[in-house]
Amino acid sequence: MTTTRGEGPTRRSVIAVAAGAALAPFAAGWPAAAATTLAKAEPAERLVPARPLPVPDTVSEALRPVVGAPLPAGWDSVPRDADGWRALARASARGAGPILDEIKQKLRITVEPGRIGGVPVFVSTPVDLPEANRARVLMHLHGGGYVLFPGEIGAGEGMLMAGYARMRVVSVDYRMAPDHPFPAALDDAIAVWTVLLATHDARRMAVFGTSAGGGLTLAMLLRAKAEGLPLPAAVAPGSPWADLTGRGDTLAANAFVDNVLVSMTGWGGGAARLYAGGAPLDHPLISPLHGDFAGFPPAIVTSGTRDLLLSDAVRVHRKLRQAGVEATLQVFEAQSHAQFLTPFAPETEEAFGEIARFLERHLAA
Amino acid sequence: MTTTRGEGPTRRSVIAVAAGAALAPFAAGWPAAAATTLAKAEPAERLVPARPLPVPDTVSEALRPVVGAPLPAGWDSVPRDADGWRALARASARGAGPILDEIKQKLRITVEPGRIGGVPVFVSTPVDLPEANRARVLMHLHGGGYVLFPGEIGAGEGMLMAGYARMRVVSVDYRMAPDHPFPAALDDAIAVWTVLLATHDARRMAVFGTSAGGGLTLAMLLRAKAEGLPLPAAVAPGSPWADLTGRGDTLAANAFVDNVLVSMTGWGGGAARLYAGGAPLDHPLISPLHGDFAGFPPAIVTSGTRDLLLSDAVRVHRKLRQAGVEATLQVFEAQSHAQFLTPFAPETEEAFGEIARFLERHLAA
Repeated sequence: MTTTRGEGPTRRSVIAVAAGAALAPFAAGWPAAAATTLAKAEPAERLVPARPLPVPDTVSEALRPVVGAPLPAGWDSVPRDADGWRALARASARGAGPILDEIKQKLRITVEPGRIGGVPVFVSTPVDLPEANRARVLMHLHGGGYVLFPGEIGAGEGMLMAGYARMRVVSVDYRMAPDHPFPAALDDAIAVWTVLLATHDARRMAVFGTSAGGGLTLAMLLRAKAEGLPLPAAVAPGSPWADLTGRGDTLAANAFVDNVLVSMTGWGGGAARLYAGGAPLDHPLISPLHGDFAGFPPAIVTSGTRDLLLSDAVRVHRKLRQAGVEATLQVFEAQSHAQFLTPFAPETEEAFGEIARFLERHLAA
Repeated sequence: MTTTRGEGPTRRSVIAVAAGAALAPFAAGWPAAAATTLAKAEPAERLVPARPLPVPDTVSEALRPVVGAPLPAGWDSVPRDADGWRALARASARGAGPILDEIKQKLRITVEPGRIGGVPVFVSTPVDLPEANRARVLMHLHGGGYVLFPGEIGAGEGMLMAGYARMRVVSVDYRMAPDHPFPAALDDAIAVWTVLLATHDARRMAVFGTSAGGGLTLAMLLRAKAEGLPLPAAVAPGSPWADLTGRGDTLAANAFVDNVLVSMTGWGGGAARLYAGGAPLDHPLISPLHGDFAGFPPAIVTSGTRDLLLSDAVRVHRKLRQAGVEATLQVFEAQSHAQFLTPFAPETEEAFGEIARFLERHLAA
């Protein structure tokens, strides 16, 4: 390397910076010499140093306490046995009454428990169901790592959707691990879908869910496709858990940034093994990112910049696009896993508003 | 809290986990009690611990050396004076010949220097310009923090676009800091745009650029709107630097994760102040996220999960949608700032392919 003129230490350090700049895939928007130079470097694991994560002022006031909350107590305790998992599931369903009541009241919906195809469900209906939505039905698959949120709490996201989209929602209270590992949840989803198909036009139906519910939504499409069942007119997987094998860059990049899941070294990783039972984690019906998305219906995928599963979300979006599927991605500022479900936050209304408009566009009336 | 039965230490710890689970905005896809409980917690800055960042196996082989590259030497050296910035700019333009030649040859385009409205430009033209694209023109604004990549290297992204989209691209070699701070770059962009408008139908034109070029694209729309100039039919800001005030959650969350910009404590922050000159950093024509996006043309926004400016990208996308603008977001797995410009990587072809199809859909033939 030569310098143009002058040789003081200041100039030398400037030139060193400049060389770094020109050789890096740069700020620029122009990787230039990177392609030729970096391709020769051995890619290697790096250590990301500890650093502060302030509460951003780029989210709504309502969401700031959620985004700025400390890591949840016990995120890194994995139950040691089936009884432990059962206790965790019971606890996850406790104390939900007041917030569910608040949702029903504020969003003006009614919720009825029922049973479809032998599977318990909760049906959420807007009190003022619009004419255009009378024949439409949304099937909802809740999250919770295939272990949490049995019963009515699992229908909470369905209630939000019914409220924001003003459509009827059937939330499936599917069987879960440890007592019912894969493919029980999927069997239940397909059982409900089959009954819904008998009474409703698939073109008037969509399927949605978040986290495990987002993965299950995609797995259901793979299974329905394989069985020759009609597919829904659209799907809306949120923060989908679509690869249970531990791949995906944000599992590392957003570890300890995400204040919901925190890290897959916590209970989430344990839940993956528990759900799979003896089946391989890369089975396409467990990790749908390993399946074939050809022929999938239009999809809207939601995530947040701090989401531990952001990689799953963007990989699902890319894979849908690669398969020629109409797919929309929305990512919310500073949100950790599934935080677009925070009831009544402006961002939640925005996220559901986008999903609702997407569904209105793709579902027959 | 009460336990259902049994009181051993194992059970107690399970219950503690469960309480954490039920009270957090959870994995679930169901924040439940979070809304009522966490809203009472004071949001606070957290310390994210040091942790390893492996090379992901979820990107192409071609991109792995780029994603897995070490932090660029000198990222944290900010030039101390104008001479230092000038030396940095010169160095950023050095050694680009071979990769530019490779792009021209492999993507079958020709590049001609010229001058439009008194501003130097580089015009990239596919050797086999399709009939449908003969009357279409894309205006390109390069990145580099308003200080780097003068001359032909700045047109590199324009060459990629001409090659992948098979459209004619005019890359603007706008004036830069320190010698020409804000609004010189914007003045030059508007000067070229004004001349292009005299000879081309705005409905057949789009504007695009990455990093500073993405911010400048949005600033140009604000300025054109204010001056009553016709707007382009579409825009494609990539990893846009749309808020120079230092806001945006990924400036913290992706610091030291991004191996291009690394952190705004490096040269990028210095470039912001240098470009603004005496003007406030939150001036909408410097930080277009502080402007009004109403009436903007359809936009496709590109970023990566490791991008230090991912927050800018998703905030731009949300703000466009809030303004009722048709806007598409694509985020690439594990990519740091602007790495979708890495020449010839499959992901680069994919990103430009999506942008090209978006432009084809929105530009009159």
